[in-house]
Amino acid sequence: MIDMHQDIRDAVTRLCADFPGAYWRKLDAERAYPSEFVDALTAQGYLAALIPEEYGGIGLGLSAGAAILEEIHRSGGNAGACHAQMYTMGTLLRHGSDAQKARYLPGIASGDLRLQAFGVTEPGSGTNTPAIKTFARREGDRYIVNGQKIWTSRAEYSDLMILLARTTPADQVAKRTDGLSVFILDMKAAREAGMRISPIRTMMNHATCEVFFDDVEIPVENLIGEEGRGFRYIMSGMNAERILIAAECIGDAKWLIDKSSAYAKEREVFGRPIGQNQGIAFPIAQAYARMRAAELMVHDAVRRYEAGENPGAEANMAKMLAAEASWEAAEAAVQTHGGFGFAEEYDIERKFRETRLYQVAPISTNLILSYIAEHVLGMPRSY
Amino acid sequence: MIDMHQDIRDAVTRLCADFPGAYWRKLDAERAYPSEFVDALTAQGYLAALIPEEYGGIGLGLSAGAAILEEIHRSGGNAGACHAQMYTMGTLLRHGSDAQKARYLPGIASGDLRLQAFGVTEPGSGTNTPAIKTFARREGDRYIVNGQKIWTSRAEYSDLMILLARTTPADQVAKRTDGLSVFILDMKAAREAGMRISPIRTMMNHATCEVFFDDVEIPVENLIGEEGRGFRYIMSGMNAERILIAAECIGDAKWLIDKSSAYAKEREVFGRPIGQNQGIAFPIAQAYARMRAAELMVHDAVRRYEAGENPGAEANMAKMLAAEASWEAAEAAVQTHGGFGFAEEYDIERKFRETRLYQVAPISTNLILSYIAEHVLGMPRSY
Amino acid sequence: MIDMHQDIRDAVTRLCADFPGAYWRKLDAERAYPSEFVDALTAQGYLAALIPEEYGGIGLGLSAGAAILEEIHRSGGNAGACHAQMYTMGTLLRHGSDAQKARYLPGIASGDLRLQAFGVTEPGSGTNTPAIKTFARREGDRYIVNGQKIWTSRAEYSDLMILLARTTPADQVAKRTDGLSVFILDMKAAREAGMRISPIRTMMNHATCEVFFDDVEIPVENLIGEEGRGFRYIMSGMNAERILIAAECIGDAKWLIDKSSAYAKEREVFGRPIGQNQGIAFPIAQAYARMRAAELMVHDAVRRYEAGENPGAEANMAKMLAAEASWEAAEAAVQTHGGFGFAEEYDIERKFRETRLYQVAPISTNLILSYIAEHVLGMPRSY
Amino acid sequence: MIDMHQDIRDAVTRLCADFPGAYWRKLDAERAYPSEFVDALTAQGYLAALIPEEYGGIGLGLSAGAAILEEIHRSGGNAGACHAQMYTMGTLLRHGSDAQKARYLPGIASGDLRLQAFGVTEPGSGTNTPAIKTFARREGDRYIVNGQKIWTSRAEYSDLMILLARTTPADQVAKRTDGLSVFILDMKAAREAGMRISPIRTMMNHATCEVFFDDVEIPVENLIGEEGRGFRYIMSGMNAERILIAAECIGDAKWLIDKSSAYAKEREVFGRPIGQNQGIAFPIAQAYARMRAAELMVHDAVRRYEAGENPGAEANMAKMLAAEASWEAAEAAVQTHGGFGFAEEYDIERKFRETRLYQVAPISTNLILSYIAEHVLGMPRSY
Repeated sequence: MIDMHQDIRDAVTRLCADFPGAYWRKLDAERAYPSEFVDALTAQGYLAALIPEEYGGIGLGLSAGAAILEEIHRSGGNAGACHAQMYTMGTLLRHGSDAQKARYLPGIASGDLRLQAFGVTEPGSGTNTPAIKTFARREGDRYIVNGQKIWTSRAEYSDLMILLARTTPADQVAKRTDGLSVFILDMKAAREAGMRISPIRTMMNHATCEVFFDDVEIPVENLIGEEGRGFRYIMSGMNAERILIAAECIGDAKWLIDKSSAYAKEREVFGRPIGQNQGIAFPIAQAYARMRAAELMVHDAVRRYEAGENPGAEANMAKMLAAEASWEAAEAAVQTHGGFGFAEEYDIERKFRETRLYQVAPISTNLILSYIAEHVLGMPRSY
Repeated sequence: MIDMHQDIRDAVTRLCADFPGAYWRKLDAERAYPSEFVDALTAQGYLAALIPEEYGGIGLGLSAGAAILEEIHRSGGNAGACHAQMYTMGTLLRHGSDAQKARYLPGIASGDLRLQAFGVTEPGSGTNTPAIKTFARREGDRYIVNGQKIWTSRAEYSDLMILLARTTPADQVAKRTDGLSVFILDMKAAREAGMRISPIRTMMNHATCEVFFDDVEIPVENLIGEEGRGFRYIMSGMNAERILIAAECIGDAKWLIDKSSAYAKEREVFGRPIGQNQGIAFPIAQAYARMRAAELMVHDAVRRYEAGENPGAEANMAKMLAAEASWEAAEAAVQTHGGFGFAEEYDIERKFRETRLYQVAPISTNLILSYIAEHVLGMPRSY
Repeated sequence: MIDMHQDIRDAVTRLCADFPGAYWRKLDAERAYPSEFVDALTAQGYLAALIPEEYGGIGLGLSAGAAILEEIHRSGGNAGACHAQMYTMGTLLRHGSDAQKARYLPGIASGDLRLQAFGVTEPGSGTNTPAIKTFARREGDRYIVNGQKIWTSRAEYSDLMILLARTTPADQVAKRTDGLSVFILDMKAAREAGMRISPIRTMMNHATCEVFFDDVEIPVENLIGEEGRGFRYIMSGMNAERILIAAECIGDAKWLIDKSSAYAKEREVFGRPIGQNQGIAFPIAQAYARMRAAELMVHDAVRRYEAGENPGAEANMAKMLAAEASWEAAEAAVQTHGGFGFAEEYDIERKFRETRLYQVAPISTNLILSYIAEHVLGMPRSY
Repeated sequence: MIDMHQDIRDAVTRLCADFPGAYWRKLDAERAYPSEFVDALTAQGYLAALIPEEYGGIGLGLSAGAAILEEIHRSGGNAGACHAQMYTMGTLLRHGSDAQKARYLPGIASGDLRLQAFGVTEPGSGTNTPAIKTFARREGDRYIVNGQKIWTSRAEYSDLMILLARTTPADQVAKRTDGLSVFILDMKAAREAGMRISPIRTMMNHATCEVFFDDVEIPVENLIGEEGRGFRYIMSGMNAERILIAAECIGDAKWLIDKSSAYAKEREVFGRPIGQNQGIAFPIAQAYARMRAAELMVHDAVRRYEAGENPGAEANMAKMLAAEASWEAAEAAVQTHGGFGFAEEYDIERKFRETRLYQVAPISTNLILSYIAEHVLGMPRSY
């Protein structure tokens, strides 16, 4: 299982060799989008890995997606600019009509259409998704959308957006998770129809945005699946998202551990390699063990996912454990590198900033612990 | 993999139901040996699980041993009184002569002969095994043994002991790991020949001892394998030991997590179940996730072991991670139960004491971290 | 401040030298009361340190009590058998009538009367004190008490008990903290009147009990202060209790750190003292730093207490930080001592068990964090 | 003690109100020097706080310096651009000649001369200061300097530098700490004489640099104290440095805790303030308690320093504990703020980056633990 998709892993590693630290550092300094990298990935088909062959993709399972993303991060890169397609697309794949799939998937597979934007979270909702207020009002063959999204990453660089909006007011539905619907948005058309995107500068190069809808019209044919069942559609993609992000964390942890142990072997202070100090070596070794255990959980979650089981517990634990392991590795890396851990040219500080995100997004550690406590261990809901 | 040996697990669980908390508590208070429990396990063949069928055993692999021990601990019991046979016996199985195997294995399988004592560590050696000083001097068809062992668990309750002694002085061998030899000792004969056993009272009911050898004679036919190669023989059993102990820790963690979440659901303070407090629920959930990840590492190590690979890294990590997870669960259990966590009748305090051992024995967390740092990550040896 | 009461500290240390590890170990094995030790302390006046001179005490402040208890623990002893008097007595001192003080204090000061039992917590109330159900019904010049207490430490060895009981039903008072009253109980009379004591065996030698009241009569003159104001009286002693327990934890931490660093210097494995390993030395050093910081918090809380301020935040933080530091020291001590950390004769395992209690009692870490969150930082109550 | 210099604290707080988050964010984005802020501080005399009145300063003790720096950080600012003067100047004050003091101190006090650069560390030495290679060769009334410094913060923005260089080769001195000398460098002259400064971009706005010396001449009168005793002079200022940095960490922790508890009270998700979740509230409360304890250690170290004691242990522990507390607060702040924790406009991510430095600089946590283990607890040196 550890060797799963070794051929893909090797190929991705070779591709990433053309995009060294200096490439990512420059983008980071400019908060720029890695277009060349995304183009290279697309050219070799990796971003189409999960798209069925009939639509121009490779038709692989989630394990291939996890392998690709892990290797990008293991090479010191960052897949944040393009990973979203792999999990948002599931909504389209599973719930979209044949016409919708035929219309969008080939372009996504060829790279002509970027599906990176995922419009779910709102300032007032936080992780309480059913509380979103963005409303899509049906009028004839149109929906008129009003509201605001936040943390919509890559909205500026995406051609399509998966959008969740309320279509029936919360006080008119039996359950608050009813009455929500999913749309696939043509971003160019939406901008012309009044959608406004406002970037948020963050600690890392994440290209995240606020998106404002002010009477933006969407054609009815862009509704995915049935009206009112959108919450379910979105939720069904969450496990894939968590597994893929977990794989990226595993990649981050491996890169950080490699860098740290290499530096600890080579750097001499007080007449000997600093790695001879247990105060240096043990935190790296501890991070390694935690990473390896988290990696097994990622593999377990993938296996269950691909077997058609509900891997809710495993996907959540994989994300939590992998994000903790990568953070432990990042902390050890900074301490190991001393001052150099903060110097941009060593890339340690960049990974330190980047990997920190995953204890918060796409779901916070607290909510995962709540999930385990409530849904796995049967304790009462705490919030 | 998680379901591996489910039938065995179920049967062990049923057997353990006859040995409830009260049984173990009483033994604990008296620091007594669980003879009835060991007899029951033996009667159903579980202690012969790893012995080949030709010698009266079941001929299962290490995974069965791990499953049995885990379930004993998951039921609130403690396999410390009988687990040693499963890993010490490997030395006899792999390196003993046909005559030795024919002589001892059927008795071990039937329960007539207990092989629980493992005489390796000495007060002066600690974990530096090649530094042991116990010496077996060859004289004709006898070895004359002098020296002292410590932490020889179950020496009082065992019929046989695997003994490591130096047979060539350390200054006459090329490598300090040479010149050590392994013997199988008939404890009754050895006592009559002057071996003295002195129990050490410890925090838990572990029946550990010092053993003193003062010109104790051992027949030459009790030498296992070749003289001088004993260190290798012993080392080859270490991975099995670590994996089995890790499985016990997984069992402990599961028991502790079950008890804690059950109590948190039922116990009400301030008008609601205490499990509704994240300060109670989150540490239990965290321990659960750590346990699940450690469990996957145990399975991975077992799989490699049974495939004939060297699972050194995985066995060590499994032991470290499982012992940390069971300790995290124990800490959470004590805090969850409040005062009741310290009351003997709840068994929490017993498991708390018992499971703490496994961060120290059979190998400490520090030495595992050293192993990872040096042998997996290639950093310089730190000691 | 660190040197506060150096003369008292020195004298207590000398006294404790007569009660070495072997003394405490024997008591621990038998779960026996340290009568000789308590007698010696009483003979030298230390248990009367906080009693005003007019009643036969020394009339010192809380800082003296803290110094005495800290030194007992720093010497490897345990003040759990006698410390309660120092904080329970405050209720009598501050709220008792002159007659009550004249009747009881001289006997407490001389050691003829042990006031060690503190009957507050009940099985159903936990830390939610106003929820206690024990009821004292006024009938003429008597109160008739019915109910049950738990975790009433030293009830078997005490001549007097401070008892909290409800005197007005909860549904007939404005606030649920009203209608509770405090009594001073003559234990001998109460036993004769039907009070029953049932010891609870715990992980440490703590002599804690359940106490059952079945129509037990108490004379009206044993009511302390006004009927109905008992909750306030008890609460006013809580800060003293926390500070004194914190001082004991500081003593525990110092003893554990001393033992550990001494052992790490002397014990050689792999040809050098184990203290040369950062994996051994750093956790001890870390515990030392945490202990020193917690000690400053104890001193700060004492200073405020003696200055008549409300040291609620500082007393709680002192208890939490000191209990964490002593536990960190205990964990380091066990790992440093390896197998010997579990051997009873080294006393490490005893202190390990003893000091663990203070993260739970007399108030759990969770409730202290709740207190800080709510009362210091102004966040909403979480339970 | 907590209220020490309350008047100064209030005044600094008022001054800082003119330099809100937006000011520091803009500097951060541009990696620019806070000239306006430094000028304002200088104008009000705060940077001259520790300079004797006879040289135009205020003549206060270290406690005043600590109070000033803490308040700057508590207000959300960063004193990194100007704090160095407060500890580097001690070398000049204690060991400089009257002529040197008369020449430099008034200018420093008035703000005309910035003494912010401290040239000690070198790429090859790390924290092993005696291993520095920069050499100052005496020739007539000049020293000719060759070598390289690293992590020389603010070298671009400073008029003066305290420089440590070897003046006698390491193989010609009795102890490797001999033969080092301290100089005060006129940066303008040194640049003209060939000193080259190369900025290092780091994770935070810290203006740190490499400085290259290639036959740079320094007049003999710029030697401070005796030739060859420089290591001692530098070391004597280390305690002040650690105490002042610790005070900044306390300020950071207070700011982060204030922001977090305010946000936790106000931000509602799932229909209630997130601060009602113990998973949010407890880490903030824990950071608060750790900060308060670390603050007491800072005060204790300052008190000892001002009393003329050697506060080596306390200054080191204060730095370690304060940096840990501020980091704990930073971690809690990021988790509390969710996505907003990463958004630049909230300043949380800035403080998160800034305060992380102090577990590494000016001395790493590992070296502080080594110091405690060796110099306080008497364990053998581990490196």
